[in-house]
Amino acid sequence: MTNFEEKTVHTEPIYKGKVINVQIDDVTLPNGKTSKREIVKHPGAVAIIPVTKDNKIIFVKQYRKPLEKTLVEIPAGKLEHGEAPEVTAIRELEEETGYTTDQLTYVTSFYTSPGFADEIMYLYKTNSLEKVEQPKAMDEDEFVEIMELSLEEAERLVVEQEIHDAKTAYAILYLKQKGLK
Amino acid sequence: MTNFEEKTVHTEPIYKGKVINVQIDDVTLPNGKTSKREIVKHPGAVAIIPVTKDNKIIFVKQYRKPLEKTLVEIPAGKLEHGEAPEVTAIRELEEETGYTTDQLTYVTSFYTSPGFADEIMYLYKTNSLEKVEQPKAMDEDEFVEIMELSLEEAERLVVEQEIHDAKTAYAILYLKQKGLK
Repeated sequence: MTNFEEKTVHTEPIYKGKVINVQIDDVTLPNGKTSKREIVKHPGAVAIIPVTKDNKIIFVKQYRKPLEKTLVEIPAGKLEHGEAPEVTAIRELEEETGYTTDQLTYVTSFYTSPGFADEIMYLYKTNSLEKVEQPKAMDEDEFVEIMELSLEEAERLVVEQEIHDAKTAYAILYLKQKGLK
Repeated sequence: MTNFEEKTVHTEPIYKGKVINVQIDDVTLPNGKTSKREIVKHPGAVAIIPVTKDNKIIFVKQYRKPLEKTLVEIPAGKLEHGEAPEVTAIRELEEETGYTTDQLTYVTSFYTSPGFADEIMYLYKTNSLEKVEQPKAMDEDEFVEIMELSLEEAERLVVEQEIHDAKTAYAILYLKQKGLK
């Protein structure tokens, strides 16, 4: 296999934020020339497909500032430093939907935007939901609305582009293929 | 429907790059409080699922600096300013694989990381590929290797995490469901 590795000559930190860091790497290319790579560092994220006893999927509707619009997505959240993805998944499920689970199935993982960001998304599913009496609170700058939808209703929202993000699109295709159980 | 819109009070530009811009928006939340949103602006991207006459899918293997590893992905690229996504798709197909097409089918679109970036990905498919004698050159800092794989071979690379990005994972699930034709 050809080796296309790009060696870092210098890293220039641009920004250290609450969610992302940004840096510019000067790299040596496989042909010996140099170039710059703009890189967003992200802690990684989890998403969870929560399926209720009566075959509804629980979604959260929330405003996405980068897009200046409201999207309907499966519950998701950022990894806290050092936290196992399963722990994040259960925490975010509880905070966003008021449900918890002790039966989490790993579905897959993928990098969301490998060209400019290192964000990885771990995807889980659960068919075993239990209502939490006093669920953990969300971050104080988070506002979401819960929606329970059948797979057919969710597919309609894909067509209408109210569901319009990669992880949720993948999740719906996955359920369509494997079934909800 | 509840309105969760976050109004921008101030935008602070952090970085203007070749691929991404970064900005911090001060916003007013639905409860009247304020918060900050870290936002990556991206021109958007296209990806294309190229299927050959003998039912192989054409992939490109390339080094992804943000991940410090090599991934196998479907051909993809950034939108040039003002360019229609179909035009970008055909250009990137030619540059990366040496094939062109005049029959492009729109599959779907999705935002890759709506929490911090506005990147949208338009996904296309073609079953009609024609070899280009002297294909357009790639950007001079791009190095890729072409791989023609059956769907089963591609699924194995998903398990081995050589295929490990959202658009390619979606594409493989899509082909699995709809067939290659």
